Amino acid sequence: MQPYLLAPSILSADLARLGEEVTHVLEAGADVVHFDVMDNHYVPNLTFGPMICQALRNYGVTAPIDVHLMVSPVDELIEQFADAGASMISFHPEASQHVDRSLQLIRDKGCKAGLVLNPATPLQVLDYVWDRLDFILLMSVNPGFGGQAFIPATLAKIEAVKQQIEQRGLNIRLAVDGGVKQDNIVEIAKAGADMFIAGSAIFGQGDYNEVVGQFRQKLATV
Amino acid sequence: MQPYLLAPSILSADLARLGEEVTHVLEAGADVVHFDVMDNHYVPNLTFGPMICQALRNYGVTAPIDVHLMVSPVDELIEQFADAGASMISFHPEASQHVDRSLQLIRDKGCKAGLVLNPATPLQVLDYVWDRLDFILLMSVNPGFGGQAFIPATLAKIEAVKQQIEQRGLNIRLAVDGGVKQDNIVEIAKAGADMFIAGSAIFGQGDYNEVVGQFRQKLATV
Amino acid sequence: MQPYLLAPSILSADLARLGEEVTHVLEAGADVVHFDVMDNHYVPNLTFGPMICQALRNYGVTAPIDVHLMVSPVDELIEQFADAGASMISFHPEASQHVDRSLQLIRDKGCKAGLVLNPATPLQVLDYVWDRLDFILLMSVNPGFGGQAFIPATLAKIEAVKQQIEQRGLNIRLAVDGGVKQDNIVEIAKAGADMFIAGSAIFGQGDYNEVVGQFRQKLATV
Amino acid sequence: MQPYLLAPSILSADLARLGEEVTHVLEAGADVVHFDVMDNHYVPNLTFGPMICQALRNYGVTAPIDVHLMVSPVDELIEQFADAGASMISFHPEASQHVDRSLQLIRDKGCKAGLVLNPATPLQVLDYVWDRLDFILLMSVNPGFGGQAFIPATLAKIEAVKQQIEQRGLNIRLAVDGGVKQDNIVEIAKAGADMFIAGSAIFGQGDYNEVVGQFRQKLATV
Amino acid sequence: MQPYLLAPSILSADLARLGEEVTHVLEAGADVVHFDVMDNHYVPNLTFGPMICQALRNYGVTAPIDVHLMVSPVDELIEQFADAGASMISFHPEASQHVDRSLQLIRDKGCKAGLVLNPATPLQVLDYVWDRLDFILLMSVNPGFGGQAFIPATLAKIEAVKQQIEQRGLNIRLAVDGGVKQDNIVEIAKAGADMFIAGSAIFGQGDYNEVVGQFRQKLATV
Amino acid sequence: MQPYLLAPSILSADLARLGEEVTHVLEAGADVVHFDVMDNHYVPNLTFGPMICQALRNYGVTAPIDVHLMVSPVDELIEQFADAGASMISFHPEASQHVDRSLQLIRDKGCKAGLVLNPATPLQVLDYVWDRLDFILLMSVNPGFGGQAFIPATLAKIEAVKQQIEQRGLNIRLAVDGGVKQDNIVEIAKAGADMFIAGSAIFGQGDYNEVVGQFRQKLATV
Repeated sequence: MQPYLLAPSILSADLARLGEEVTHVLEAGADVVHFDVMDNHYVPNLTFGPMICQALRNYGVTAPIDVHLMVSPVDELIEQFADAGASMISFHPEASQHVDRSLQLIRDKGCKAGLVLNPATPLQVLDYVWDRLDFILLMSVNPGFGGQAFIPATLAKIEAVKQQIEQRGLNIRLAVDGGVKQDNIVEIAKAGADMFIAGSAIFGQGDYNEVVGQFRQKLATV
Repeated sequence: MQPYLLAPSILSADLARLGEEVTHVLEAGADVVHFDVMDNHYVPNLTFGPMICQALRNYGVTAPIDVHLMVSPVDELIEQFADAGASMISFHPEASQHVDRSLQLIRDKGCKAGLVLNPATPLQVLDYVWDRLDFILLMSVNPGFGGQAFIPATLAKIEAVKQQIEQRGLNIRLAVDGGVKQDNIVEIAKAGADMFIAGSAIFGQGDYNEVVGQFRQKLATV
Repeated sequence: MQPYLLAPSILSADLARLGEEVTHVLEAGADVVHFDVMDNHYVPNLTFGPMICQALRNYGVTAPIDVHLMVSPVDELIEQFADAGASMISFHPEASQHVDRSLQLIRDKGCKAGLVLNPATPLQVLDYVWDRLDFILLMSVNPGFGGQAFIPATLAKIEAVKQQIEQRGLNIRLAVDGGVKQDNIVEIAKAGADMFIAGSAIFGQGDYNEVVGQFRQKLATV
Repeated sequence: MQPYLLAPSILSADLARLGEEVTHVLEAGADVVHFDVMDNHYVPNLTFGPMICQALRNYGVTAPIDVHLMVSPVDELIEQFADAGASMISFHPEASQHVDRSLQLIRDKGCKAGLVLNPATPLQVLDYVWDRLDFILLMSVNPGFGGQAFIPATLAKIEAVKQQIEQRGLNIRLAVDGGVKQDNIVEIAKAGADMFIAGSAIFGQGDYNEVVGQFRQKLATV
Repeated sequence: MQPYLLAPSILSADLARLGEEVTHVLEAGADVVHFDVMDNHYVPNLTFGPMICQALRNYGVTAPIDVHLMVSPVDELIEQFADAGASMISFHPEASQHVDRSLQLIRDKGCKAGLVLNPATPLQVLDYVWDRLDFILLMSVNPGFGGQAFIPATLAKIEAVKQQIEQRGLNIRLAVDGGVKQDNIVEIAKAGADMFIAGSAIFGQGDYNEVVGQFRQKLATV
Repeated sequence: MQPYLLAPSILSADLARLGEEVTHVLEAGADVVHFDVMDNHYVPNLTFGPMICQALRNYGVTAPIDVHLMVSPVDELIEQFADAGASMISFHPEASQHVDRSLQLIRDKGCKAGLVLNPATPLQVLDYVWDRLDFILLMSVNPGFGGQAFIPATLAKIEAVKQQIEQRGLNIRLAVDGGVKQDNIVEIAKAGADMFIAGSAIFGQGDYNEVVGQFRQKLATV
């Protein structure tokens, strides 16, 4: 595995020029395109669905697309996003009545499968699905609500999950989303994360080469 | 009122270049930008939310934006879309427990208010809200499902609604959405519609000037 | 039937002294105690349930208690309120999947049965339940939201319902709730209503004898 | 069309010997096998699903199977029952957000399509789906609750629907379900029904030849 | 306790001859009749409800009937199945908001009470209900979906639960359901299970005496 | 912190004289007014909402008001109760999709924040919210159902939670609700609880001075 993946969230991109924005940020060195999919039921906002994913593929984007489903239920959208070109799909265990089956479905559709843990979600939800997981996403803010800062208690949670991944000898990515910025990414990486979702910290900034480069420099110090 | 409004649905636009697409179709003579908002609960698809509307406004689009909410519940999204720059907002009476109040909310937020009637929805849902309505949208296909043809029974429904609008002396737009094409738009206009939503019949075609011009020529013969 | 019933809504009473408040308003000449029951699901507020009804009965209130269920589902609360001393129970047809059965249930429990029509609800919901009804409640504001004025279109709706009651020769009360005040009660009564729900127009005022007397004087002029 | 169809509901059959029971009642002259499908959500009971339908087909039953869906949502079960051998499928308009589409789905799957009207459901739900209907089922009791008698007001409703069918010159069956017995079937047929669902009035009786014969004799007098 | 219980699931029986099928399989040596109750809400299928249970009792079946509720909510169906002759009732902790109370309800109705754990459900759901449990059912496939194989990770889960049962000195059955066959039942039993649900592995086979005998022989080697 | 808080639940007070009742019980030495808020969805009862809380504040009650939300969803009612004068607000983790955020919301509104654990809820729900908590409420009966006795297994649960609070060096109240009486309060306090909710054991008794005094005497012996 590549040591660190940087995944800008298109939630903060200029959605009227999405193809261009994504192309630029990838050219600047970002690794993965991150989708925050909200359905106004699991979270109190509605963002975008499979069509936008398909539009990026049609535009020529070949980088991995990572779809974080903040929706309930999940199975129909798993299938639709996989068909629309998603590479990685994750969902919240609270949002599916049949977590093991939904994880299998993601892999059956040819994507990498992940679970997302809300800040308050305990780690036991992972106990019997380790072999179904390609990645785990820890939320360091509450999904679907704006203007939140990184929750400090996440650092210990990253460490606890990383420790389990290593003890089990598994090849599982550990991603973090929420308030990830240049001034805390080193600390987050040191705790054990190896994939970083960032929205306004990347797309909100002027020069993508510069900002992505700055993130890379920070990560090089870990 | 302008006699006929042509409202291309961005559902069929290239969503990776949305600002450009919308600008082009408006320059070609389209009147209104139409949003099909689906939440994967009221209909079995998820499309896009208020952020995309805001992105078009930020891009410089000044034409009216008409938001068709295929969502349930509706009140939160009414507020969010109004704040994101919507000009017209409509919803399905089956999707709100308090139809009169939701209609008032749309106007309170400075937008034009409409109700959408599914193919099977009877006209009585309009009986006690006529003075809350700026427009009515009749679906000529079932919303949220792909690949459907114009339902012929819609023509009689258009006539029946148009007759009531005229008898009451009201200034209410009558829009039609679903399978509207160059070969049936004259018939639909003659039945009484004066606003036409079209997706693939406009955005799917090569030259927007040409296709919008052809629609205009058809409407000139009504 | 007594020509006009005045039913103060306890929503506007001092709920810390409810027994006293209700006793005073009844001594002042009010006819019926009105309960606005909200469950934070059918409407966006939570008010009070069967226990408060039982408490009034235990306190010694013997006047009719009229329970307006702004809840969904309705059947369990129908039974609980009937057991707690309710005299009249009404609900919204949109809130029960089995309207005929819920109406029967109210009568089976020994109470008078009513349907409540929201401002936008068409009259056809009454077509096949006329013989199940002891009263009809027309909302002249949207239930569950504060600070609304009487919707003028309600007057025509009162007339239309009253006409049907008379044509069918039925003994059905016609109640109106929402923005009923001294300056419009005559007009509402003339349109055909014979039961009047009022909250702040009664409980919010200083001297219940005076305010109830004023309402009575107004009604005497109809 | 055959003038009158008799459709025993397997709800009253001995479900441990269902193949035998159904074979006997068909040999005795019943025309259609009626399924009351309840999901404990649209109605407060759970009965049986597509597997039982398939089991009857596997057993050799070739008579039409008429599936009354007292479930919500309906689309998935429409597909499953059609695949399991159903001939006619009906549902409640309140139970589907897309009534026109669900009716089309039934026909697309090769079955006859119907709507079911609860006792309190007004006729306007039929206004814009007449050409999608092969039959209409009027409930003369509230579905899903036991021990109810035929609601007398149903007779006028049958007449009103029959009149519309004839005025429109349509070939639509009119079925009635709930409390249909030998002593009221003539009256129900005279009002305009031509298909009769009966449960305990047939399966609960000893000799199916005798009881079916008695129903036939009654109908011969209409 | 009898060391091993074999519980054929009627899901795979010929449902048109259910009484006969169940009688034969019990005569062949099966111990318990297993019901997979699905409501098309907790799982995406609808199977059968209390009436089928009652029909088996009326048919003369006296063996224990074990009802696995794949439904939500659970309390109403617990009461109905207990009244219809169920001996053991289990449900999923995710499907009841009041797990302790639902478990008490099962015992209050005179049945043995169990919880069912989905493949991904962690063991902590058991932490505070040990004294309410007569049995635990571990799913080795995802309930409600067809064509799945035994999930290997279940073996470690069986061992972990068995260990807790023994450490606490409790008299609790440990059942396993999903992909249990002759070639893995020994392994499952060795891991700690003492009750085995099997559908097509028993009812799908020709001679019940032979297949039940083969299962018994396998278990005799544990 | 004061060593022991006694919190009478107004569920058992005379609700027709609520202001008087609450005043008397506080004068008798009770510390906190406890509200059991039920919405007929999370639990099968409807009790009272924010208006009753506001009425007590208007009446002059200045003691802390502790609001236990047996509702779902929780966020709207958190805001409403905080605005109506609540001092402490708790909810069930199963009733909010965003537990961390709801806890933050309570504190943002100026109240003390708590989580309530049902009898069967495992302790892991606390793992990542310790620093968001001002108090924890352990249910020793199932909320929303009447006539239940103290569940003995709660004592071990109290001890386990108390141990964690102490190990982490946190200043968190530990409350217990359900079947708390004079004959078990000492045992409950010894297990580690320091706040006691009691309904009929206080309000149902004659002389509040006497009964509160008796509870205090019991607690003095711990």
